[in-house]
Amino acid sequence: MLDPDLVAQHRQELRRGTTSLACLALLAHTPDYGYNLLSRLSAISLTIEANTLYPLLRRLDKQGLLTFEWDTTDSRPRKVYATSPDGISLIDLLRADWERLSSALQLMEKS
Amino acid sequence: MLDPDLVAQHRQELRRGTTSLACLALLAHTPDYGYNLLSRLSAISLTIEANTLYPLLRRLDKQGLLTFEWDTTDSRPRKVYATSPDGISLIDLLRADWERLSSALQLMEKS
Repeated sequence: MLDPDLVAQHRQELRRGTTSLACLALLAHTPDYGYNLLSRLSAISLTIEANTLYPLLRRLDKQGLLTFEWDTTDSRPRKVYATSPDGISLIDLLRADWERLSSALQLMEKS
Repeated sequence: MLDPDLVAQHRQELRRGTTSLACLALLAHTPDYGYNLLSRLSAISLTIEANTLYPLLRRLDKQGLLTFEWDTTDSRPRKVYATSPDGISLIDLLRADWERLSSALQLMEKS
């Protein structure tokens, strides 16, 4: 019988390793507010706290992988993040790793 | 221009989150010695040090996700690891997460 804590631990491990990549991929498709990104991540099982996501977005911005513009249509200005050309190059590089990992998983499926 | 250190850092982050899952998937397909598993992991871009892999295999064994048998055909007995039924159940659960993450990556590809 599989221990639920053990499952949670392994899911978290997988999540931690893939959150940056998922953020870059989602924001390359559609630029967004951090707040909206939370629910888009949640829709792909990457449930993450706002106070974990916001520092991550700032880190990716500092690394030049994201850019942002201020949306001032509301009373309070909000950052709209988009993946930069460097971020898109990074996704392309990481996608190759991802594909190889996916092959390993599919290999198991056939066993 | 994408900084090679930054690429390395993000590849490592992805690798860290996916190594356990890859070990379980590969050993579910074909049971193996730790030593052989190193090169099978390396073939899917998961290059990992022996002194990182061996403790991981012992941890997965303690968690009941792997089992092992002693191969005593050689002068020195060697452990042959295989993924346990619980390990296979875990892969099935994590694969659902994986598929959703893959969709996010493919989504980006279409943008």
